[in-house]
Amino acid sequence: MAALKSVKGFAAHDSSGVLKPFEFSRRATGTKDVVFKVKYCGVCHSDLHQMRNEWNSAVYPMVPGHEIVGIVTEVGSEVSKFKIGDHVGVGCMVMSCGACSFCKKQNEQHCSSLTWTYNSIDLDGTLTYGGYSDLMVANEKFVLRIPENLPLDGAAPLLCAGVTVYSPMSYFGMTEPGKHLGVVGLGGLGHMAIKFGKAFGLKVTVISTSPKKKEEALKNLGADAFVISKDMDEMKGAANSMDYILDTVSASHDLEQLMTLLVPDGRIVLLGIPPEPFKINPFSLIIGRRSVTGSDIGSIHETQEMLDFCGQKNITSTIEKISIDYLNMAMDRLVNADVKYRFVIDLDTIQRA
Amino acid sequence: MAALKSVKGFAAHDSSGVLKPFEFSRRATGTKDVVFKVKYCGVCHSDLHQMRNEWNSAVYPMVPGHEIVGIVTEVGSEVSKFKIGDHVGVGCMVMSCGACSFCKKQNEQHCSSLTWTYNSIDLDGTLTYGGYSDLMVANEKFVLRIPENLPLDGAAPLLCAGVTVYSPMSYFGMTEPGKHLGVVGLGGLGHMAIKFGKAFGLKVTVISTSPKKKEEALKNLGADAFVISKDMDEMKGAANSMDYILDTVSASHDLEQLMTLLVPDGRIVLLGIPPEPFKINPFSLIIGRRSVTGSDIGSIHETQEMLDFCGQKNITSTIEKISIDYLNMAMDRLVNADVKYRFVIDLDTIQRA
Repeated sequence: MAALKSVKGFAAHDSSGVLKPFEFSRRATGTKDVVFKVKYCGVCHSDLHQMRNEWNSAVYPMVPGHEIVGIVTEVGSEVSKFKIGDHVGVGCMVMSCGACSFCKKQNEQHCSSLTWTYNSIDLDGTLTYGGYSDLMVANEKFVLRIPENLPLDGAAPLLCAGVTVYSPMSYFGMTEPGKHLGVVGLGGLGHMAIKFGKAFGLKVTVISTSPKKKEEALKNLGADAFVISKDMDEMKGAANSMDYILDTVSASHDLEQLMTLLVPDGRIVLLGIPPEPFKINPFSLIIGRRSVTGSDIGSIHETQEMLDFCGQKNITSTIEKISIDYLNMAMDRLVNADVKYRFVIDLDTIQRA
Repeated sequence: MAALKSVKGFAAHDSSGVLKPFEFSRRATGTKDVVFKVKYCGVCHSDLHQMRNEWNSAVYPMVPGHEIVGIVTEVGSEVSKFKIGDHVGVGCMVMSCGACSFCKKQNEQHCSSLTWTYNSIDLDGTLTYGGYSDLMVANEKFVLRIPENLPLDGAAPLLCAGVTVYSPMSYFGMTEPGKHLGVVGLGGLGHMAIKFGKAFGLKVTVISTSPKKKEEALKNLGADAFVISKDMDEMKGAANSMDYILDTVSASHDLEQLMTLLVPDGRIVLLGIPPEPFKINPFSLIIGRRSVTGSDIGSIHETQEMLDFCGQKNITSTIEKISIDYLNMAMDRLVNADVKYRFVIDLDTIQRA
């Protein structure tokens, strides 16, 4: 009988969200499983929400992390897509039913029986543990190939932040060169939206409450324009100009005001989840056939497509690399949006933690 | 010099909205103009809003009416599409700039220089007058061909109610046989949505606050199912089942509750304009990539496509035909939604009014 694998990780044990070293085991390698040494794991804002039980669904101990990359160390007997030494990753999902209408159309992110990478019950009844740990085991169907030319640390956030931005851009056709994309919020998602937007040949305008982000957006990230949302003259100047808007902001804000920036047939896609409902005047939607929609991560198929696109265009996330014993400090900084633009844990540092 | 045309109509003269006989003139026939004897004109709820200045844009005297059908009596020297005796109609628009990006893509309904059929300033600086009148003059570009097999009275409401429903169904792809359409509200728009839905091969469910409309919806209009929106068990039973919803209700109502009826990737299209903003929880959009959008009338191209489709499928509006001196009474009944499903004025009755 194949042996369970001993794994070192960091876990939260209650809604304080404080992370401490935690040893646990992962399943013996199944015939379709890929085993990989975790090299890096991105820190997503949803990790923080989950650890602190802000979505009221926490199960402890919780090992967060769903932007996981590493190098294959073992493959099951029936694995055909990967071999030892491959650069691979796992994102938000590790299993789905495979039989429902969504799974059949490669939209397994909509499957009602989805198994999340952490804080979810696996097929064998055990709790899933995420990538704040040094070893991962996953069915090859949910393992992604990371292009060899990409640095693994900067590639890690592509597994969630990357696909969360890429998926709606691809699904809703926000990819037509010369079209105008508005990006609301300049964080982990927003900065990827600029990078993808420019790679697709779009004109990209950042919409932000914070004038101090202007130089960063234009000079370092390559946005074409910057609009301060509190400046009514700037907002009027940009009215009726944007074909699409990606709204990444998780704080309460005025959607109606953003809608004025859209051309007729324009679409705003919500990626952040503010605590209060949005108010929408029906006129804003009816006149000009404008749409409001939302999007949550993306499919495995889209994630691989996005990674391949990043390989071709040399796109990675802009990150701050941290050692694992800095995690609790990093979480405090994350609350204050004090990161450009994603913390990524170096899992080699776990041996001395 | 060609002569102005003397026209008999009914006009509102102030925000009381009371309609009285009104004689006015229409322009001499231009080279691209089609002149037609108005046979019937539908009474749209927006006529009432406009007459009573409820949208704060009324100009008096106002001759309402934008569901106008009749028989061609004269054509300009350069008119190529129509000849005397043809069955024709005019809807909500009579001119657009022809040069903007929307006009160039046959989306003239989005043109910012649109001339509306009534209560709008025409190219020659005169006020436009609508179809509550016995003669119409319009540029052939904005004149529609009514299929000869359709009765003109039932065809009149197709020019606004018909295309308002057909356009989003066509534009947003709500036409795939076997898919499930929800129709909210059973009035001038809602009853057309059932007819188009069934003609496209959809499963059609009516969602209504009023149990007494059930028999009418199922037996007379051919809907497949009926859900009472105040009945939580019925709503739960229909949850996650509808691919699209057309929401025709103009009274304030709960959009969030309707969203629960949509499958992932489902879309709700607003056609009515309630007085208060909708509240939308971002989760309802993000989880399952659901969309909320709106739609306002449709293009000339779509209107003709819709009319040809109605000709093929023998679709007309279900109407109550009235003489023009019944108009003020009809407006009072319209306020109470007391009509199945559209009043249509017989303009032959104007001679004795």
